[in-house]
Order: sequence, then C-alpha cells, then structure tokens
Amino acid sequence: MAVYTEIGDDELRAFVARYDIGDVLACKGIAEGVENSNFLLTTTRGNFILTLYEKRVAPQDLPFFIALMEHLAHHGVACPTPVRARDGEALRQLCGRPAAIVTFLAGMWPRRIQPVHCAQLGAALAGLHLAGASFPMTRPNDLSVAGWRRLFDSCAARAGEVHPGLAEELAGDLAALEQAWPESLPRGVIHADLFPDNVFFRDERLSGLIDFYFACTDFLAYDVAICLNAWCFEPDLSFNVTKARLLIGHYRSVRPLAAAELAALPLLARGSALRFLLTRLYDWLNQTAGALVRPKDPLEYLKKLRFHRAVSGPGGYGIDA
Amino acid sequence: MAVYTEIGDDELRAFVARYDIGDVLACKGIAEGVENSNFLLTTTRGNFILTLYEKRVAPQDLPFFIALMEHLAHHGVACPTPVRARDGEALRQLCGRPAAIVTFLAGMWPRRIQPVHCAQLGAALAGLHLAGASFPMTRPNDLSVAGWRRLFDSCAARAGEVHPGLAEELAGDLAALEQAWPESLPRGVIHADLFPDNVFFRDERLSGLIDFYFACTDFLAYDVAICLNAWCFEPDLSFNVTKARLLIGHYRSVRPLAAAELAALPLLARGSALRFLLTRLYDWLNQTAGALVRPKDPLEYLKKLRFHRAVSGPGGYGIDA
Repeated sequence: MAVYTEIGDDELRAFVARYDIGDVLACKGIAEGVENSNFLLTTTRGNFILTLYEKRVAPQDLPFFIALMEHLAHHGVACPTPVRARDGEALRQLCGRPAAIVTFLAGMWPRRIQPVHCAQLGAALAGLHLAGASFPMTRPNDLSVAGWRRLFDSCAARAGEVHPGLAEELAGDLAALEQAWPESLPRGVIHADLFPDNVFFRDERLSGLIDFYFACTDFLAYDVAICLNAWCFEPDLSFNVTKARLLIGHYRSVRPLAAAELAALPLLARGSALRFLLTRLYDWLNQTAGALVRPKDPLEYLKKLRFHRAVSGPGGYGIDA
Repeated sequence: MAVYTEIGDDELRAFVARYDIGDVLACKGIAEGVENSNFLLTTTRGNFILTLYEKRVAPQDLPFFIALMEHLAHHGVACPTPVRARDGEALRQLCGRPAAIVTFLAGMWPRRIQPVHCAQLGAALAGLHLAGASFPMTRPNDLSVAGWRRLFDSCAARAGEVHPGLAEELAGDLAALEQAWPESLPRGVIHADLFPDNVFFRDERLSGLIDFYFACTDFLAYDVAICLNAWCFEPDLSFNVTKARLLIGHYRSVRPLAAAELAALPLLARGSALRFLLTRLYDWLNQTAGALVRPKDPLEYLKKLRFHRAVSGPGGYGIDA
C-alpha cells in the first residue's frame, strides 16, 4: 500500500481543469500499488485514476508506459486508457512529479485464486501479447537475467539474515540461469508483473489488466512463467497443475506456444522465481524506518524457485508439449 | 492512513447483495483515516464508503455513531448517511468485524487553511450542535478531563524521551485543568475530532463533515476549542486571530455563545491541546513495528498548549465577549 504524495486541493483543481473530464468532486488516496501514488478521482463525469509517479519509476520510461496503455486499449485489451488533456498531452506534472489520469476499470482482483481465474488470465495474457506485437516502442527488461547478478551482489552478504545459506543456494541458481538462459525465443511486449492484484474480475469474468509499470520487451513465454509463479501455487506453496494447465491451455488457444517456448518454461519459471526473490530480498534488507509499505516475504519465492529447479520439462506443469 | 482488513471479493459481493445499492463494480481501500478500514465502494448506482470497524472503536459505541449520523443527516447536516440493508439494519458484520455502508460525500479537505474555511467551519459546527440537540442518545467523552490522568500516568515515565521535562510540565497543566475545569456549560453532542481532514469543501464551500467516531456528549464550547486548535494555528504554530474570529463569529451567528462559554474558552482550548498531546504522546511511545500509520508529532500540541496557558480571556483569541 502506498500514497506518498499529498495533493493540495487548489493544485488538483487547476490540474484537472486542463482536462475535459468535468469538475472534481473528490480525490482519495488508494491503498494499493507500491511504486506510485494512486488516487481515485471522482468528477462530475465519473471515476478516474490519477497517478503520481514516484521515484521508483524512471521518468524517461513514462512515455513508453503511457503509449503502451493507449496502444493496448485501442487494440481491444481491457486496460486503463490514459486520458489526454485538452492540449493532447497525457503526461503532465503535478506536485513536482510526473502525473497521468487514466480511465477507471471496474472489477476487483481475486483474493482466492480459482481455476476459472487462471483460464481467463491465460487467454488475456495471450491477447495482450498479440496486441503488443504492433506496438513500435521497446524497453529493455532491467530485471531479467542480465540484471540479476548486480541485484544478487547487493544482497549476498546479508542474505543469510533472511535464511541460512541463502546466498550460496542462489549463487548456484544464478550461474545455472546465466549459462542456460535462452537467446532466441519469440519476443515482444510483456507485462512482467501480472500478479493477481493487477488483474480485475467482475463476477468471475476478467474485466481488465492494470499496472503496466514493469512492462518491457522480453520473451513472451517469460510472462507466462511469471504468471505460473504468481497464480498457480496454493497458499501452502504446493503447485496446482490444474491451474497451470488451464492458464497455459487458454493462452495457447489464443496464441500458440512454440515447442522451444514450452521446453524453456521450467528455466523461465525458475528465472522468474529468482527475479522476484531477489527484488523482495533487496526490499527486505533495505527497509526504511517509517516506510508505509510492508515488504513481501522473499522466502515464498525461494520455495517456488526450488520447485522449478526440479522440473525437467513442461510435463512437470501438467502440460503436453 | 490505514487499511487494516482485506475483504475477499466473494465476501464483499455477498455483503453488498443485502443492500439495495446495485452491483459491485469496484472496491478500493482508502489511505485515509487511522481508526478504521475504509473502502471506496463503486456500484452500478454510484460511490459509497464501506467501513470496517477495527479494534480502536468499541463495538458497543457503534449504534450511537450510526444513529447520530442518521439523525444529523435527517436534520440537514451534510454528513455521511448510513445506508440500511434490505432488512433495515445499517450495522452488520463483514470479515469478522462490524461494518457499515454510508453515502459518499463530494469534496476535499483543505490542505492550506484559508480564513474562508474557518468561517464556514464555525457555522457548520454550530449547525451540528443545534441539530444534535434533539438526538436522544448520549455517550460520555472518555477523552475529556476525567480521562487525562490515566493517559498521563501511562506516558509520564517515558515522556522525557520525546521532550526533556515534558512530564513535569504536563503534570502542572493537568492539575490546573482538573481543578478549574467547568461543570455547568451547555452540553450536547460534539464531534470532538473536527480536524481539517474531516471537513470537506467544494470550491471553497463546505460540503460535509465526516468521521463521527469520536462523537460524544460534552460541552459544546469544547468542540469550538478543539477547532481553535485544529484550524487557527499556522504551520509555524503562530495563532491566527483572523481565523479564530471568523470561526467563532460565524459559529455565534448560528448558535450564540453564552458569556460563561466564552470565558471558559482559554481553559477548554488548553484542555483540548492537552488531550491531543497526550493521545499523540501515547501513540508515539507505543508504536508497533511494521504499523502502517505514522504517528503524529506530539510536540505540535505542546506549543499550542503553552499558547493557551498564556491566554487570560477570549480577547486573547481576538474575540469580543
């Protein structure tokens, strides 16, 4: 949860006056999202989301994210659409920070993941990948294999505080992943953070995808691997093959997966587990006193990493090649 | 800021189905309010506020708060109106906690207090007191003079950690206030926490009062004294007599203040400063690790307390008796 910046009422009114979205009725900080300050903005025309981009998002990446949401929305993906001000700009400044208004998406993210959610997620993810194919901009994935060693090095000395022997164990995974990471799988725009709290449902129908602020250009199958980690483990961290089969089956019904992509899944899933483990470990070791964000448990991803380490092929996820 | 409880989507849907307010479109935790979990609930009929009452609100007090909001709303006070479910009940259970849905009030609380805000606040406060006169229920004020010694005793030993000599200084105020506290001023329902973040404005017009969860039966002039503290000091803690004069002048234009009430104001304001100082001190000394609420600075109220200690009559606030 996070609201970092407080917006003055006068500043807000002047800001909203630049848009053709009616008059401000209310603006409330939302206790969701950890990277930015998000507000539910109610105007005489309805609800919108106002985001102030805080320092974890690089300003030079914002045009990519804004253009991507616009592109995806125009290509049929249910996602927030940036609202352009009267001067045509969707990205402005508010309270000294980059800021944007996007449309409000109905729906709630699922607290208890059911197989039906995974099925729809798979289809929506494939739809996102297809729609992204015509998006002209690119953005490297800083949090893929090339970025892990730096992250690992910054945590290794203190990793043992979180779990004995953690640094040694992860060093082995990191070396193996660096050595075996694929080079030539189909690439495109990936969401890269499609956790349950970024996927809205209305009455068990997927109603939208949000939070594109990790989106980047990478292997499409890596996005599938992230979802396997985020959606297919039960709270006790057992792996639910029914959910995985539905997720991947529905993905394939919209965008077929090549044999090389299926074969790479265990490695990509292991890498994705390492990625979230490392960023959580970093946040865990670098908590700031008085921070309003409770860091997530890194060890959840250690268990997931170990699971994938033992999987030798897509059959381990219940999937036919 | 606070959202303590997370509501499952299934539970929420079942809960809202008991009301005649349409279907759930979205429900987002609001990063405002420290006592309860507040959600902005959007349905096919519009926006509502859903509150889960956390442990700082005593369940036995809830019928008082709910009935008070209903009474005030029906007597013309712009405040949230509890929404009754189809069975007539406004107070139910959700996620194992008492819960209520209230109407959504348009407006934003003022970040920079202007004299015009204080004028309208004064009139609205008097309107609240008049409307409360016909409210039949009562609730003692636990945080008035009779409750301060217990609070002081629980903090005294460690008060010096916050400010050297603080316990000794406050012991003097406490003894003086206990000795001189009035006994027979006009009483009634007071809000008791009418800080700027509980007062909404739309284009400089007061649009509503919220957060009645400290409301109780006490001296009406004590509510005025709380507002003097909360609204009439500048950020540098200088006292703005223009604001005080407007606040009290507009209050008196709606509900006259008796000579005894005016004469008691410095004492009531000093007491109110001690009350907020003590509760902030308590919260400061009893921070829980990982809490999502940043405690407020107790020393702000020490400076206010000292100011009032030096005021000998209403003239010190720029007010004619």
